[in-house]
Amino acid sequence: MARGRVTRLTACDVRFPTSLGAHGSDAMHTDPDYSTAYVTLETDAEDGLKGYGITFTLGKGTEVVVCAVNALAPHVLNKDLGDIVGDFRGFYRQLTSDSQLRWIGPEKGVVHLATAAILNAVWDLWAKQEGKPLWKLLVDMDPRTLSSCIDFRYISDVLTEEEACEILQKNQAGKKEREAQMLTQGYPAYTTSCAWLGYSDDRLKQLCTEALKGGWTRFKVKVGADMQDDVRRCGLIRDMIGPEKTLMMDANQRWDVPEAVEWMARLAEFKPLWIEEPTSPDDILGHAAISRALAPLGIGVATGEQCHNRVIFKQLLQARALQFLQIDSCRLGSVNENLSVLLMAKKFGIPVCPHAGGVGLCELVQHLIIFDFISVSASLENRMCEYVDHLHEHFKYPVLIQKACYLPPKDAGYSTEMKEESVKKYQYPDGDVWRKLLAAQGK
Amino acid sequence: MARGRVTRLTACDVRFPTSLGAHGSDAMHTDPDYSTAYVTLETDAEDGLKGYGITFTLGKGTEVVVCAVNALAPHVLNKDLGDIVGDFRGFYRQLTSDSQLRWIGPEKGVVHLATAAILNAVWDLWAKQEGKPLWKLLVDMDPRTLSSCIDFRYISDVLTEEEACEILQKNQAGKKEREAQMLTQGYPAYTTSCAWLGYSDDRLKQLCTEALKGGWTRFKVKVGADMQDDVRRCGLIRDMIGPEKTLMMDANQRWDVPEAVEWMARLAEFKPLWIEEPTSPDDILGHAAISRALAPLGIGVATGEQCHNRVIFKQLLQARALQFLQIDSCRLGSVNENLSVLLMAKKFGIPVCPHAGGVGLCELVQHLIIFDFISVSASLENRMCEYVDHLHEHFKYPVLIQKACYLPPKDAGYSTEMKEESVKKYQYPDGDVWRKLLAAQGK
Repeated sequence: MARGRVTRLTACDVRFPTSLGAHGSDAMHTDPDYSTAYVTLETDAEDGLKGYGITFTLGKGTEVVVCAVNALAPHVLNKDLGDIVGDFRGFYRQLTSDSQLRWIGPEKGVVHLATAAILNAVWDLWAKQEGKPLWKLLVDMDPRTLSSCIDFRYISDVLTEEEACEILQKNQAGKKEREAQMLTQGYPAYTTSCAWLGYSDDRLKQLCTEALKGGWTRFKVKVGADMQDDVRRCGLIRDMIGPEKTLMMDANQRWDVPEAVEWMARLAEFKPLWIEEPTSPDDILGHAAISRALAPLGIGVATGEQCHNRVIFKQLLQARALQFLQIDSCRLGSVNENLSVLLMAKKFGIPVCPHAGGVGLCELVQHLIIFDFISVSASLENRMCEYVDHLHEHFKYPVLIQKACYLPPKDAGYSTEMKEESVKKYQYPDGDVWRKLLAAQGK
Repeated sequence: MARGRVTRLTACDVRFPTSLGAHGSDAMHTDPDYSTAYVTLETDAEDGLKGYGITFTLGKGTEVVVCAVNALAPHVLNKDLGDIVGDFRGFYRQLTSDSQLRWIGPEKGVVHLATAAILNAVWDLWAKQEGKPLWKLLVDMDPRTLSSCIDFRYISDVLTEEEACEILQKNQAGKKEREAQMLTQGYPAYTTSCAWLGYSDDRLKQLCTEALKGGWTRFKVKVGADMQDDVRRCGLIRDMIGPEKTLMMDANQRWDVPEAVEWMARLAEFKPLWIEEPTSPDDILGHAAISRALAPLGIGVATGEQCHNRVIFKQLLQARALQFLQIDSCRLGSVNENLSVLLMAKKFGIPVCPHAGGVGLCELVQHLIIFDFISVSASLENRMCEYVDHLHEHFKYPVLIQKACYLPPKDAGYSTEMKEESVKKYQYPDGDVWRKLLAAQGK
């Protein structure tokens, strides 16, 4: 049973100066400083447990998300955790449908990122109180309770609560075996760490060599800024990994629809499994057109990390606009909204291959995809979870990768908690790291 | 020629306690306090002119938009106004594609509202320097220059720069006559002031009587919270205005897709021209399904006030999801992005009927729709602009309504400037009005 009244909610602006090393650079985000609006929830329960929630940002603007968290805080403060999770759908609706605040969303952009950070903290706290890692809390929940966490508003034409329960009920069979499989083998991952756009060819080769030694078999390369550059880099990486291993490409929204089709026709010789984010994340019909054009070339379309809510995912599925669906643990409204997307993907038979990387996205999303395998999809076919080898050292319960697979977390909670000294050191603009950097820049 | 270097950009949180009178209340926004993030731009030019920009909000969250304006400010400060408007597409792209900030959008929600406020101020300043009301600045601009203000990214599959120029070029004929027509007759309007959801039947009747006396022939009623209530209110208003006058209905996103179709089948007897915002503003395919279902009943679908960018409008047009397109002067990226939507609507032959009301939305959008008539659509068929009789007294150049038509503004600028004493009095939380209200609430 969830317990305690929420007595305190704080939000912190924590930034890592990743732009200094071109880590995370792509065709649209040339100099990201991986950052997070980091939420801490405290209650008056005697257990003294705290809930931690993150949402991912790229540096500037983190303070705007922190401001939005504070605007939402009155909906959380002084609430009983039992009441929150006891009517989780109602609480989700309250956060996302505040009669005044919804105007500056609704359920998109800054306010939705803030909602994610708060709800991630609630789930972390709940799982800690239950003494389970989040994935296990979800796996052990009965279908009716799981469904009651989901707001079906605007998706009931595609997925009703009854259908959600049926899908979950059907998968009760075999759950134990799949859980055991996860615990021994883990969930398959792919790496994006080798081929950021800002890396030199030499660095790319070196990282690729290391990754191959480490047992990685699936690689993603950033493309979209310069065609000649792409041809050279894609050729280089395909040569290094050989014809059998899997290569994915990611354009990070660089193209218009006709351009995406032309560009990928040129890169098709390198046999990519998918092209990720070929155009605007808002362009459902554009993704559908690209999917149709690239299908004869054997290239699928993947998107999701910037799809702002379940209504967009619903339509991407309705329009057959993607062949790989990429959920994100921090852009959607936390576990609640991601549950609805996992269930819709199952209904449409589309594999979910989560977006991760950034700060903590690997830590969080592993819980969702492990739950998905055990309770929803029951399949590993065409499925894998992104992995990026950055910033895990700042987390109290970092991911564990073994033979290119995510091993299920065993600690209670949602793996969202950061090390206290990291939060202090990287806080913006007052942490040690930033005081020095800003002073060096004369700011 | 635009002149001066931007030396100062300030953003103010200004709120009007409209919730006290249930003004603006609808099925989703039960207690709005009409508000604005109010931007002031100053330059070092000797003319001493200032640019004012607003974006509309509903109270809480205005501080979040102000925070986002400040995050965008470095892109504006110390720039020459001539460089900004001389490469307006480039400047638009810079504001909306900041490599770090775009993550918390992109081009949606809080950051896009902030972008609108800043760009609205730039347009106001530019028009003031040219000594023309904004609509006239646009009307007098040659097609090539107008098109150069538009970012065609993500819409080039539907509208290219060449097509935009062609549309504008074709309409050069007859421009003088249409401008003269606007100056004498004005642009037709409809009223939403009579039938907010929170108003009593008596108040509704009284306001309706007054509006009929004032020459209004088109009325909008809020629906969607309670069916019996809707039937009674719609019957009442249809009785009062008679069978010939035009009635529109607005559900403010209250329904799921199947519910929208059922509900409107019941209200069809009151012969509405359109149902506005029947469901989520993100649901393009949902609006298309509703459009198809309601077409046999003679009811069109209208939407737009919460459609967050041109990519959504592009798809609404592609999917034939709406029969009336409602631009908003403060949610899209100002004049620049609205130009692209007006041109796409023209290409698809869909009438534009702007959203207005709130704070200053009437003042701003009249410029866009008058320009649309003179230079783009060249038609008044099925077209009208929303009007709400609130808060105009706070503006230095308030709208002028004559015989239920908007008369074209004659003062230079974008009509965005508020009275200094209003800004001071309604500033949140330190203005006189709020200090008293908050003290009365014990805050």
